[in-house]
Amino acid sequence: MLTKNQIKLITSLAQKKQRSKHQLFTVEGVKAVEEFLKSSYILEHLYATTDNFEVNPERFSLITAAELKKISGLTTAQEVLAVFKIPNPKSVSTERLIVALDAVRDPGNLGTIIRLCDWFGVEHIVCSDTTVDCFNPKVVQATMGSLTRVHVHYLDLPAFLENTKVPKFGAFMDGANVYDIKLPKNGILIMGNEGSGISPEIEELISERLSIPSYSVHQSTESLNVATATAILLSEFRRRG
Amino acid sequence: MLTKNQIKLITSLAQKKQRSKHQLFTVEGVKAVEEFLKSSYILEHLYATTDNFEVNPERFSLITAAELKKISGLTTAQEVLAVFKIPNPKSVSTERLIVALDAVRDPGNLGTIIRLCDWFGVEHIVCSDTTVDCFNPKVVQATMGSLTRVHVHYLDLPAFLENTKVPKFGAFMDGANVYDIKLPKNGILIMGNEGSGISPEIEELISERLSIPSYSVHQSTESLNVATATAILLSEFRRRG
Repeated sequence: MLTKNQIKLITSLAQKKQRSKHQLFTVEGVKAVEEFLKSSYILEHLYATTDNFEVNPERFSLITAAELKKISGLTTAQEVLAVFKIPNPKSVSTERLIVALDAVRDPGNLGTIIRLCDWFGVEHIVCSDTTVDCFNPKVVQATMGSLTRVHVHYLDLPAFLENTKVPKFGAFMDGANVYDIKLPKNGILIMGNEGSGISPEIEELISERLSIPSYSVHQSTESLNVATATAILLSEFRRRG
Repeated sequence: MLTKNQIKLITSLAQKKQRSKHQLFTVEGVKAVEEFLKSSYILEHLYATTDNFEVNPERFSLITAAELKKISGLTTAQEVLAVFKIPNPKSVSTERLIVALDAVRDPGNLGTIIRLCDWFGVEHIVCSDTTVDCFNPKVVQATMGSLTRVHVHYLDLPAFLENTKVPKFGAFMDGANVYDIKLPKNGILIMGNEGSGISPEIEELISERLSIPSYSVHQSTESLNVATATAILLSEFRRRG
């Protein structure tokens, strides 16, 4: 049985302001919820239409499919919705390669980039405050559980870059061919906004401009999507690391 | 001025059945429409809230923003919607690298893969009949005009692969490390469904199993998204081609 207040709280967590206020976020779907339960994230409450989940009974509510539909943000609700606490910020380690995001706005792109970082062993992502929130439900959904293994930090990106003395790489249309240049084991790979790329303020702080060469026979001003460009660049860093 | 019948026809083109019946599809947004106008695609009709488009006046209608909203499939309609004819099928050239898709269902993924093929100079994509239609409005939107430069074919994929005598590569969790093995200039790179991967029927026809190694310190059964895996594999083929 769900109370009106519970429904109100859970659905309000779709908004960043409410997530910040309550320090809570939602995860949906069996696979994703199980990944978060196995992780160091702290469960606030789990709502499910089955009792297949091993959690403290005080933190579990068996609900009907109709009730789940009321709190789900998905087009088709999927058996379980869990509310977790937003973890305390960790410190950023720059001993290994990290990824920095300058105003990446699309939740699907951030989710894909978190998943890529998980795959390629990048444990820290630092984001400008203008980057979409990693606890946005669409981001959580797109990460497929990778968010439990990758730390995402929101901070003053220009100040962070200025104070961090490691090589800083940025992806540009006119950079050096990434296949040809030497890549270190540590450093910061900076990826920019979907429409406008890396902002001038951040561009000034970049030591190495990288580019993924095009093999098209056509003249085109089109660039690669930020998530696919990140995929190719992380692959290059790891292949030669 | 838009007639009821025009509105009905244009909005019906969101459905594959209606696109096939009328052999028409829609493109929205100034940049994408301009790319299609410059290409060999044949314009059926252009509807816009401004007269900034150089097209045959018989094929142009100046409409209001309220009218555009009625025919647009976008959350925020963008100045122009154009209806183009679906082109006649071309023959597939296998002289250079091509990409084959086995039941890729997500429009965003197909759009991203078309855009990647454009970037990496892959001119032909062959798709199983179970792959999402490339003239689906969400696919067209995600390609950002790349669909004007890449030919997408729907065919009996197992029969096509059986009859085509070039090396056939597939992406698997247990394949050979793509960074280590030799890659040819031509061949077919086969990518599978988002959930179930490459189907058993197609798997039998693959000569080389490829894998993108993970650098994660965590044990995880998660795989890369099909679009990001395609990005990395095409980058590898081109880098060494």
